[in-house]
Amino acid sequence: MIGRLFRVSIFGESHGKGIGALIEGCPPGIPLSEDYVAEELSRRRPGNPLTSPRREEDWPEILSGVFRGRTTGGPILIFIRNRDVDSSFYEEIRNKPRPGHADYVARVKYWGFNDYRGGGHISGRLTAGVVAAGAVAKRLLDMFGIRVYSYVTQIGNVSADIEPVDGEEFRKMIYSSPVRCPSPSVAEEMVKELRKAMAEGDSLGGVVTATVFNLPIGLGEPPMDGLDSDLAKVLISIPGAKGVEFGKGFGLAGMRGSEAIDPWVLNDGRVTAASNNMGGVNGGISNGMPLLVKVAFKPTSTIMRKVPTVDLEAMRETIIKGRGRHDPCIAIRAVPVVEAYVSIVVADHLLRWLAWQPVRSRILGD
Amino acid sequence: MIGRLFRVSIFGESHGKGIGALIEGCPPGIPLSEDYVAEELSRRRPGNPLTSPRREEDWPEILSGVFRGRTTGGPILIFIRNRDVDSSFYEEIRNKPRPGHADYVARVKYWGFNDYRGGGHISGRLTAGVVAAGAVAKRLLDMFGIRVYSYVTQIGNVSADIEPVDGEEFRKMIYSSPVRCPSPSVAEEMVKELRKAMAEGDSLGGVVTATVFNLPIGLGEPPMDGLDSDLAKVLISIPGAKGVEFGKGFGLAGMRGSEAIDPWVLNDGRVTAASNNMGGVNGGISNGMPLLVKVAFKPTSTIMRKVPTVDLEAMRETIIKGRGRHDPCIAIRAVPVVEAYVSIVVADHLLRWLAWQPVRSRILGD
Amino acid sequence: MIGRLFRVSIFGESHGKGIGALIEGCPPGIPLSEDYVAEELSRRRPGNPLTSPRREEDWPEILSGVFRGRTTGGPILIFIRNRDVDSSFYEEIRNKPRPGHADYVARVKYWGFNDYRGGGHISGRLTAGVVAAGAVAKRLLDMFGIRVYSYVTQIGNVSADIEPVDGEEFRKMIYSSPVRCPSPSVAEEMVKELRKAMAEGDSLGGVVTATVFNLPIGLGEPPMDGLDSDLAKVLISIPGAKGVEFGKGFGLAGMRGSEAIDPWVLNDGRVTAASNNMGGVNGGISNGMPLLVKVAFKPTSTIMRKVPTVDLEAMRETIIKGRGRHDPCIAIRAVPVVEAYVSIVVADHLLRWLAWQPVRSRILGD
Amino acid sequence: MIGRLFRVSIFGESHGKGIGALIEGCPPGIPLSEDYVAEELSRRRPGNPLTSPRREEDWPEILSGVFRGRTTGGPILIFIRNRDVDSSFYEEIRNKPRPGHADYVARVKYWGFNDYRGGGHISGRLTAGVVAAGAVAKRLLDMFGIRVYSYVTQIGNVSADIEPVDGEEFRKMIYSSPVRCPSPSVAEEMVKELRKAMAEGDSLGGVVTATVFNLPIGLGEPPMDGLDSDLAKVLISIPGAKGVEFGKGFGLAGMRGSEAIDPWVLNDGRVTAASNNMGGVNGGISNGMPLLVKVAFKPTSTIMRKVPTVDLEAMRETIIKGRGRHDPCIAIRAVPVVEAYVSIVVADHLLRWLAWQPVRSRILGD
Repeated sequence: MIGRLFRVSIFGESHGKGIGALIEGCPPGIPLSEDYVAEELSRRRPGNPLTSPRREEDWPEILSGVFRGRTTGGPILIFIRNRDVDSSFYEEIRNKPRPGHADYVARVKYWGFNDYRGGGHISGRLTAGVVAAGAVAKRLLDMFGIRVYSYVTQIGNVSADIEPVDGEEFRKMIYSSPVRCPSPSVAEEMVKELRKAMAEGDSLGGVVTATVFNLPIGLGEPPMDGLDSDLAKVLISIPGAKGVEFGKGFGLAGMRGSEAIDPWVLNDGRVTAASNNMGGVNGGISNGMPLLVKVAFKPTSTIMRKVPTVDLEAMRETIIKGRGRHDPCIAIRAVPVVEAYVSIVVADHLLRWLAWQPVRSRILGD
Repeated sequence: MIGRLFRVSIFGESHGKGIGALIEGCPPGIPLSEDYVAEELSRRRPGNPLTSPRREEDWPEILSGVFRGRTTGGPILIFIRNRDVDSSFYEEIRNKPRPGHADYVARVKYWGFNDYRGGGHISGRLTAGVVAAGAVAKRLLDMFGIRVYSYVTQIGNVSADIEPVDGEEFRKMIYSSPVRCPSPSVAEEMVKELRKAMAEGDSLGGVVTATVFNLPIGLGEPPMDGLDSDLAKVLISIPGAKGVEFGKGFGLAGMRGSEAIDPWVLNDGRVTAASNNMGGVNGGISNGMPLLVKVAFKPTSTIMRKVPTVDLEAMRETIIKGRGRHDPCIAIRAVPVVEAYVSIVVADHLLRWLAWQPVRSRILGD
Repeated sequence: MIGRLFRVSIFGESHGKGIGALIEGCPPGIPLSEDYVAEELSRRRPGNPLTSPRREEDWPEILSGVFRGRTTGGPILIFIRNRDVDSSFYEEIRNKPRPGHADYVARVKYWGFNDYRGGGHISGRLTAGVVAAGAVAKRLLDMFGIRVYSYVTQIGNVSADIEPVDGEEFRKMIYSSPVRCPSPSVAEEMVKELRKAMAEGDSLGGVVTATVFNLPIGLGEPPMDGLDSDLAKVLISIPGAKGVEFGKGFGLAGMRGSEAIDPWVLNDGRVTAASNNMGGVNGGISNGMPLLVKVAFKPTSTIMRKVPTVDLEAMRETIIKGRGRHDPCIAIRAVPVVEAYVSIVVADHLLRWLAWQPVRSRILGD
Repeated sequence: MIGRLFRVSIFGESHGKGIGALIEGCPPGIPLSEDYVAEELSRRRPGNPLTSPRREEDWPEILSGVFRGRTTGGPILIFIRNRDVDSSFYEEIRNKPRPGHADYVARVKYWGFNDYRGGGHISGRLTAGVVAAGAVAKRLLDMFGIRVYSYVTQIGNVSADIEPVDGEEFRKMIYSSPVRCPSPSVAEEMVKELRKAMAEGDSLGGVVTATVFNLPIGLGEPPMDGLDSDLAKVLISIPGAKGVEFGKGFGLAGMRGSEAIDPWVLNDGRVTAASNNMGGVNGGISNGMPLLVKVAFKPTSTIMRKVPTVDLEAMRETIIKGRGRHDPCIAIRAVPVVEAYVSIVVADHLLRWLAWQPVRSRILGD
């Protein structure tokens, strides 16, 4: 479970009956339908040859917490039944853990009882539950004018600085790109890079960037529960995520203070930062600038080439080769997942922040 | 509070009475003295002209949870009284928030009631509490042969790949370097870089790397509480931290799957990875390789140069200039903090992992 | 969510699609089948004219966390679809909140968006999820020889001190009684009392007692997470529960210290208490005696008699009369729920306690 | 730690350096001084021959979280140094655990490393930390017009139904009574009962009742985090508490539905309950009536009479006899502790409830 007020747990297995999410603490009255969640889930769906050919027509059954189209205030359970699952490959490699995956560590940790098919509960498949829960969070954020966008800013060696723009147009540009990159020219380069790697049976890493517009100043609870800190936790939990950074992130390590500092200036009488190197967070608290976070994804571990591993039954080294349906670059399909997780964490911190506002009126008498 | 079994909360203010940590859930019988904690805290202490001239002779008073030199099993409260505090600078700039710091956001979030001196409870000063709690965690890890090291691998534009070595010799090399970099030649470059920046009244960013040796396979609880995920949360909560990555991290975004994958091989009959691009974690679970995590720190925001800000009383733009004692590169002093936080998270996950082992014996009959 | 290691969340609505439980942190390898859980659920099922005539053939679908008959170590989701639901009564009284129920407060708290049929998510129906989760917990306790029994010790004015006996025979006696009271003579009196109340369209309160045998000494984490403290939380969360007490409980308020104290004595060289007035817990920690806890249940609020309420639409006082299927005494059906919740809390504390045992060996060298 | 938004942890030992509380999540701007907390603590102080002669002039040092007389929004640490401590008795009985206390179980659980003097961290002494934290919570409740009172309603065989009255006059009557019972005639009986027991070197149990006035309808989060459920957890964690009940509590077990139900009526156009058998909570949610909760306390275990125990060193049965300063009835001193814990839980739920209110405006447009 993550979150303090808006709380989310995910569950399920890649090749089991299905996956889903439990959302606790969601306020009542929020419009929520299976259609809307399905629409959000469709963003995860590969729509082109660049991503995995596995057809996922995920249908989110809302099993509790919604009554006549609105959240009830009780726990919301969303379940997505698995379909179209062929586990034969996993039976073959049952004793031959795929390098880069959690197959081996799961076998050791769970004493061999874990569902080894498709990674079991340690699988990108579970992020469909995240997207479902994020769909609910986004509805809550909408009410307060907060909008979250995520998009690909790097695939392999092709990367670009993309200036996010608040508006549905920007979201359309993201999702009209097969690689979820809103810059058509960069996207084209990325597609080339991907095709080349695919032709060689290889995969590529990538970076997903997320931006939050219109955050109030003051979300985040330092010293231990900063907004960035809580975001880092969930983003690193996405399968394949190996790094997270805010604003200029690792770039700041190579900068001087005089360059890095975001000076405070007045803008139409409002205090604002002249630059956003910090990514909209100071000391764990949102500072009114767009929140900017990047997540690094490793290349897909399952590739169509021979990779060394160990046959755990025979206890001798061996070779396996990927087969079946795998995204050549998981960053692409991680785009809506990053957006969902950011939405969930922001929704939780928004509620925490809202809890204090009536106290403020009492104290300041305003 | 962080942690599920080994739980830590920190508190205090930079210029208030003091700072500290509350540790709940620590097992009894662990040797713990104020001397030992003080020794750990001394690692945070600047020992040379490259770090802040503020003298911090921190003495950790153990106010509860230790009896006759051993932990009791009850909550441990460690308090470190502040000394040598001059707040005059902060009175001067009370209405002129330092860019890059949380001054402005704290004022907005806390409606002006926060302690604005030295950042109040949003200050690097609170990391002394983290180090104190980490001292306890390290004792617990020691019993299981788990060792954590952290060190500087980048300052400004000087960076180096440093191969960590398990042993007290390595730790000595780290702490004998004024910049906490165990490679003397790299350290020398870093010192030069730092001196140059300091001469210009400027500051530098940096990267701290941490390594954990001898972790059992199996720590971490995906899908939501992976070891890396929990580490990311606490590491980003360190003031100044703007990025975190595991293994090759953001570098993996530019790699191909065929390069990135850590193949499983047999080593003296034991399954092990031939490389460690993943940093010792697969799918949120420790994989038996050394855990490798890097934390990017922004350059110190308080510099000895003029920086633009807003006078919040007069509501007009103005200029402030740093004064007093400030580390030119906070990464250096963050070294023991990173080590402490990693130790705390690993200790918590170790206990969670231990909880299952007696169940294992019952199930497997071994 | 309750629990720290063995964690349980329940969800669902009385007249919605169904109800269920999510179990996180359960160790792998534990045998678990839908048949076994169904068997446990059947204990909740009314089997005789004394309880509600609603037919509940609950079938627990295990949607995740079990693979080939064993727990995987991942999250376990159990879902029980609702059947045989007639909501017409609730439509009629939609604006006439049933006194004693949460109808009115739910309407106010959830701004009218809650599912008002059968209490929505504030319904005894959700305890089927508790029983399902308890079934898992009991399997874990079984491995360590810990056994939990619960039974009715009071219905209306008929009550009895029943000496619990460890063994399946005792459990059989409980479940062979229509009122879940293992003493046939007392049970007979209870049945009479119930029939009388039912004949008058009325309902009765009752008390459920639970006993835990074979608890190791040392479960519970004072000062804030005592075993009794965590039990009290979950037991009071059962719909209809209005009181909880340990050992002689409220009776101790009228006793003298000299009577109440359980003296320590030697029994075959083992330290044990000569009496069990404290109910097996001292200072929040299990003391090796059978744990004894009692839960008071109010009489069923829905009775077949006219009760005053307010028509919230017309805003005038009115009268409603129960109709349909309602247990005349909810304590009877709460029996397996109490057993399940006690099992869940004990399982969680058992795992916490197990986590420390390997540390003990390291410290004491035994 | 308890609580989700207003979070409290207590720590310390009876005969160690001191005890205290850490409060996280408290909103800023709340007036808080050591004097005010000391005043609250003085209510715990025995002021007459009926309670323990140990002089406790507790002075609460606020070590963090308060700046210029107001809370800062950061963690608040309150520490109360122990004084006037004579541990000689505990050295004598070190191996002779006091029956009724946690001495023996603590020794087993903590492998002999716990502070055995005065119960160590399992001691009524730690409730001073609860009272300190409660003092903060009460300030928050004050702003919303919520008032909490607690008082003794039973000592030994003397008990009385006392109708609570909202107002400072009522509080004065409570604290002007040596037994914290606001009815002078009942108090007189209680004093007699106590004197008699004391004369015989014995102790008495008792019941503390708490009432909360002016709670909004809607506090509490079923199905798992009801207001009553969270209250039960903390109240049972008070040393010596062995039972908790809401409204008529265990009395409801003997009642019929027709008597027990609190009918809804209109009162000046407002929906209200005609009786309060449920104690102000329906289905875990506050219903607008005064909240009524009772806590049963066992008689003080340390009595001035010989009690059997086991010499754990010699492993033979022996006899010990209390000595020194012990309250003959702990319920009396528990009065402000119950009030504090109720205030803490209500403050936490109030904040959770407040968090939803701005969402309500957005949804209902009011």
